Amino acid sequence: MGVHAEHGRVVSGWRDRRLIDRLGIDAPIILAPMAGAIDDALAIAVARGGGLGSIPCALLTPDAARDQVARMRAAVRAPVNLNFFCHVNPPRGDDGTWRAALQPYYTEYGVGAPATPPPPRRPFDDAMCALVEDVRPEMASFHFGLPADALLNRVRATGTLVTAAATSVAEARWLAERGVDAVIAQGWEAGGHSGRFLPADPASYMGTFALVPQVADAIDVPVIAAGGIADARGIAAALLLGASAVQIGTAYLTCPESLIGPLHREMLGSEAAEATVFTNVFTGRPARGIANRLVREQGPISPDAPPFPYASDALAELKRADPADFGSLWAGQAARLARAEGAEPLTRRLAREALALLGG
Amino acid sequence: MGVHAEHGRVVSGWRDRRLIDRLGIDAPIILAPMAGAIDDALAIAVARGGGLGSIPCALLTPDAARDQVARMRAAVRAPVNLNFFCHVNPPRGDDGTWRAALQPYYTEYGVGAPATPPPPRRPFDDAMCALVEDVRPEMASFHFGLPADALLNRVRATGTLVTAAATSVAEARWLAERGVDAVIAQGWEAGGHSGRFLPADPASYMGTFALVPQVADAIDVPVIAAGGIADARGIAAALLLGASAVQIGTAYLTCPESLIGPLHREMLGSEAAEATVFTNVFTGRPARGIANRLVREQGPISPDAPPFPYASDALAELKRADPADFGSLWAGQAARLARAEGAEPLTRRLAREALALLGG
Repeated sequence: MGVHAEHGRVVSGWRDRRLIDRLGIDAPIILAPMAGAIDDALAIAVARGGGLGSIPCALLTPDAARDQVARMRAAVRAPVNLNFFCHVNPPRGDDGTWRAALQPYYTEYGVGAPATPPPPRRPFDDAMCALVEDVRPEMASFHFGLPADALLNRVRATGTLVTAAATSVAEARWLAERGVDAVIAQGWEAGGHSGRFLPADPASYMGTFALVPQVADAIDVPVIAAGGIADARGIAAALLLGASAVQIGTAYLTCPESLIGPLHREMLGSEAAEATVFTNVFTGRPARGIANRLVREQGPISPDAPPFPYASDALAELKRADPADFGSLWAGQAARLARAEGAEPLTRRLAREALALLGG
Repeated sequence: MGVHAEHGRVVSGWRDRRLIDRLGIDAPIILAPMAGAIDDALAIAVARGGGLGSIPCALLTPDAARDQVARMRAAVRAPVNLNFFCHVNPPRGDDGTWRAALQPYYTEYGVGAPATPPPPRRPFDDAMCALVEDVRPEMASFHFGLPADALLNRVRATGTLVTAAATSVAEARWLAERGVDAVIAQGWEAGGHSGRFLPADPASYMGTFALVPQVADAIDVPVIAAGGIADARGIAAALLLGASAVQIGTAYLTCPESLIGPLHREMLGSEAAEATVFTNVFTGRPARGIANRLVREQGPISPDAPPFPYASDALAELKRADPADFGSLWAGQAARLARAEGAEPLTRRLAREALALLGG
């Protein structure tokens, strides 16, 4: 293992080349698609570094996603991963209990809930599917399950590598039975929204260390490890546990190319990032981040928060008034392993150091 | 790395030999001390396989612990680890709410709570400390923090290697500041009682994958990784993450030498073991196990359960009447990676396979 010369050319020393070769990347490092926190700038830098750049589309219109892909295709000759949410929006219920819980903050800041709530964030749909058919990404990854068969079959027909997140062995089997080309094993450590989509006791979330080998044993397609991986040690360890590639999120959030604000950036490097929590107060679905005032006072899990994606509606003005106390500060459990560094050199360094650890 | 011949003798290829050499073991594999589930028989087998045998003393009298150590010393020339709980027993409060919650079960089984509750399980104390001074174990490990200084200093004076469990980076720093010789980084995946001892949000438990490298970075003494490690992949990965040794529990529970009953044994190999939960219903302190009726109906976290160790008192007769539904079925998240095999050959195989994965 390791980079070595063979017949006069340098051969990359990754042991499991299934995803590397299929995707056409140098290193088995995938930028985690962090909706709202990154755009094509980070994807381009990771691609230049030899990893797989991802564009999160969950908060984008199809046109905005198309623009980002176009910028990336113009900037770098490299594959791209487009990521989509596959949630099902329940009917919008009465969020009066949630507004009542937030009333003291409304009073404090002189704001309120919006009179007309915004349209809920849309899951992967016909328009997004048309975008996939049009731009033909090398990989399409799904969160919160998979789209309906009719849409999924159209995605498959483009020849893209189809993958989705699993937070349990049962979810990994479910995805494999539906023919995905790879499974993202997302451990408890991961920042942002858990991709959990099958009913299960919240007390049963599995850590990356236990999840990756059990998923690798349970299914025949390659496994992408996610959650808690923020340096070369994590990459090497994940590959030894049975992963074919890793997905890295928080470590890229600290790069200058990310879109997060200075407060979030500062928090990621602070001791507060050592004790991230799993909370539903920002969107209604459990997601991991640094605890701020809203989490401490209403969460981390509030029975009053309406179901995803509606919990965020009543927070909009509070978040504008005080993003430190009412905005989400997503972070995975390994945030403090991150070093602020350009995403291109970071990707190269991670690959080089991981290969060295693996005996290269 | 790997086993290789050097100057005519076989040299073990473990990269970090600090704990191996200090303890005098062949492989950096420590039997997790699982109180009530194992005794000297398993410790002897692990020691014969080249790992460190542990004798859990939390549920033993000093005399019973002394007997087990004597049997082990007579059976094998090897170091031993003695493990102790360092909890502080709060005053026994009124557990009426808990008994009321259990009343339907009492009625169903025709049993009740004991008229006179048993004495609470005692933390590490003068008598146990005298045992340590007498039998001089090569390692002493503590759970739920450390004993008071006066006791700890007596333990230290024996020359034993002192270690304790940390479930967060903050706890690891706390232990290192108090001069432990090694820290057990116990991740969210671990079966049985979490060693957590500093106040922290329950939502912040850290997975092994994130905890081990951050603890390794935060302190100067060796780290023992625990939680989710049940095969050679896990050992190799934990060492790459920065651990000097691993502690393995659930994978040894399936060995014929363990004391668990046939039901618990069968459950460890079933799909139920893929979704273990963190529950306080058996003792009052969060511990990981397979969900049975009591957990499903009253937990996993019940606000009615009295504080550790009192929750177990009211359960005693129910557990006797129906251990499947009311007994604890401790298991870590990697239970299904375990293979029923004698503990001695298992230890040797794990060491050999881990070295091979590490490039031996």
